Amino acid sequence: MFSVTVRDHMMIAHSLRGEVFGPARGLHGATYVVDATVRADTLDGDGVVVDIGRAAAALAAVVGGLSYRNLDDDPSLASVNTTTERLAQVVADRLADRIHVGDLGRDAGELASLHVSLRESHIAWASYERDL
Amino acid sequence: MFSVTVRDHMMIAHSLRGEVFGPARGLHGATYVVDATVRADTLDGDGVVVDIGRAAAALAAVVGGLSYRNLDDDPSLASVNTTTERLAQVVADRLADRIHVGDLGRDAGELASLHVSLRESHIAWASYERDL
Amino acid sequence: MFSVTVRDHMMIAHSLRGEVFGPARGLHGATYVVDATVRADTLDGDGVVVDIGRAAAALAAVVGGLSYRNLDDDPSLASVNTTTERLAQVVADRLADRIHVGDLGRDAGELASLHVSLRESHIAWASYERDL
Amino acid sequence: MFSVTVRDHMMIAHSLRGEVFGPARGLHGATYVVDATVRADTLDGDGVVVDIGRAAAALAAVVGGLSYRNLDDDPSLASVNTTTERLAQVVADRLADRIHVGDLGRDAGELASLHVSLRESHIAWASYERDL
Amino acid sequence: MFSVTVRDHMMIAHSLRGEVFGPARGLHGATYVVDATVRADTLDGDGVVVDIGRAAAALAAVVGGLSYRNLDDDPSLASVNTTTERLAQVVADRLADRIHVGDLGRDAGELASLHVSLRESHIAWASYERDL
Amino acid sequence: MFSVTVRDHMMIAHSLRGEVFGPARGLHGATYVVDATVRADTLDGDGVVVDIGRAAAALAAVVGGLSYRNLDDDPSLASVNTTTERLAQVVADRLADRIHVGDLGRDAGELASLHVSLRESHIAWASYERDL
Repeated sequence: MFSVTVRDHMMIAHSLRGEVFGPARGLHGATYVVDATVRADTLDGDGVVVDIGRAAAALAAVVGGLSYRNLDDDPSLASVNTTTERLAQVVADRLADRIHVGDLGRDAGELASLHVSLRESHIAWASYERDL
Repeated sequence: MFSVTVRDHMMIAHSLRGEVFGPARGLHGATYVVDATVRADTLDGDGVVVDIGRAAAALAAVVGGLSYRNLDDDPSLASVNTTTERLAQVVADRLADRIHVGDLGRDAGELASLHVSLRESHIAWASYERDL
Repeated sequence: MFSVTVRDHMMIAHSLRGEVFGPARGLHGATYVVDATVRADTLDGDGVVVDIGRAAAALAAVVGGLSYRNLDDDPSLASVNTTTERLAQVVADRLADRIHVGDLGRDAGELASLHVSLRESHIAWASYERDL
Repeated sequence: MFSVTVRDHMMIAHSLRGEVFGPARGLHGATYVVDATVRADTLDGDGVVVDIGRAAAALAAVVGGLSYRNLDDDPSLASVNTTTERLAQVVADRLADRIHVGDLGRDAGELASLHVSLRESHIAWASYERDL
Repeated sequence: MFSVTVRDHMMIAHSLRGEVFGPARGLHGATYVVDATVRADTLDGDGVVVDIGRAAAALAAVVGGLSYRNLDDDPSLASVNTTTERLAQVVADRLADRIHVGDLGRDAGELASLHVSLRESHIAWASYERDL
Repeated sequence: MFSVTVRDHMMIAHSLRGEVFGPARGLHGATYVVDATVRADTLDGDGVVVDIGRAAAALAAVVGGLSYRNLDDDPSLASVNTTTERLAQVVADRLADRIHVGDLGRDAGELASLHVSLRESHIAWASYERDL
């Protein structure tokens, strides 16, 4: 199994709903350092999982759609409690959508899975993995 | 599959038994930077794998039971050659015990697995993964 | 010259005032990984710059007074454009205040300077250094 | 499942073949920080996956056979487009060969798999995983 | 004293002249992770050392003029033994030129110094610092 | 001003003397990731501060004289409370001795200073700087 990973980041404000979150129920924020990993059983004719430039551009587009915002006011996240786990899923699903329409230049059927991790600090991170 | 990871560390003295360890057979020590990852197929009602504060507290309790000690004198490790791999297992098993009695606030039956890595330097680390 | 550094972090929401900030003029947020370094020409009788436990506790108190907040609503920052540079200064000045009243257990007159850096992402950080 | 990882690096020149690579079609170079992970279901009699010293030596030998070279002129890579993914596979296969002849001091039949990642920058890396 | 730092990278081929360099006398390559730090005694009216977006763009332009090349063939480096130290100086001087013509939007006379470090691996880096 | 840095590590056992150290008064241990930085106003005829291979070898010799030991039993440290700050000084002084006898291949009179930092965990480090 091969993989390729690209890193980007986003800076957002949000608040979390639920007793368990304590002070994080108030409006605060985070920098998420985002690592997106695409996995495939085989390389393409150029010898890559996917073109790393295209992967970086697709990830930049996805995080650019979330960064520099108050996620509490983002209509596309209206029903979402924006925990790190859930945001990892949001990023992964949006990136998968781009992959399925061909943004990475390789047929999604040749790719195995997508793993997205969001590092919220030097001591905590979360991830979501899904098939492609 | 979702995951959440928390990081802590412990500073211990120990010696290793076996020809293969060379100079590490003498009493020396290590800082282990410990990453504990809990994995689950689904998020709970709050949208998390487990509460990150509780996960951090449980990991702190486990590493606190080992840190600032000479592991050669720890009765709970009397039969253990305290290699990095074995200590990763010890930390994982003790953390799993806490998870099974409910310390993380989510039923262990809803969690898939636990992965613990111990970084002993900038060029070497080991890990242990087990089901929950 | 000796130094000791402790690391902590804070997660805040804020917006920035000024054309130059582009999308960062809207409400967004950041995780700042905060490194506080105390420098001294000599070590104390115990052989340290300052007690690392006390330094960590003082830094935790300072970042705890800022974290999990919307800095736009913090009265103590009412006149401050909370750029990373300025927040480094705020953290340094508040930590220096604690040092001067003895929170680190060593007379400030025996300490040379204080350096605080705030990492806002994997590709950008800022710092402020001042005398003690 | 247990694992142990050792880190080394190599500094090479190369060029890539294929329209997709843009400016990387010209002769340029890279530092690859190489992490090699060996996985096993059980530890050996000494309590390790493999001896970490032997693992580090085997990895050093493999990267030493590639480092400080122009890979475009390396006969052993004549038919290889030396992408990061492909080089991860080359390193893994060469390391697996050493494992299979006993260089790590443990029978390959007792080991599960080998994972090799090559970090080409702070924002991009690739990996290859194979059975042992 | 305040500072702001931006990170970028470049991937180059080169060879070094001199007995001391051993195998590095042959054509090989490196990824340099480049950190550029601008220092100033005071912040500007917006509360920054320099605009971080402009600083990142200026650094990207400088490293873009070196990356994906064989530095042995670069006319602008014809008389330069492209060691890590010397390349740190080249990057710093080119970035200083941009600062002096106003690319960062703040008069160079208000800035104190520029520090550039080049990380060539996880175990070695070099830097150059100069006045502005 | 130019600098070059090399990284190595050492794994030691020790205990600390003094009420302030709390649990660290008991025998425990640490991995210290050691960064040694040599600074010079000018580069030598080869274009380097010092040969990086020689610097790495000298640092390896110094940390090799401390690693895999119980520092409480090291006669050369009999009068030393082996705090991180003090060990940074010990490493720096031993490395400076090697520099002064020519181990780095450049006259110490051409070098400005030496900075040694010891990282004891992901959240704490100390350093010592001295002239050469």
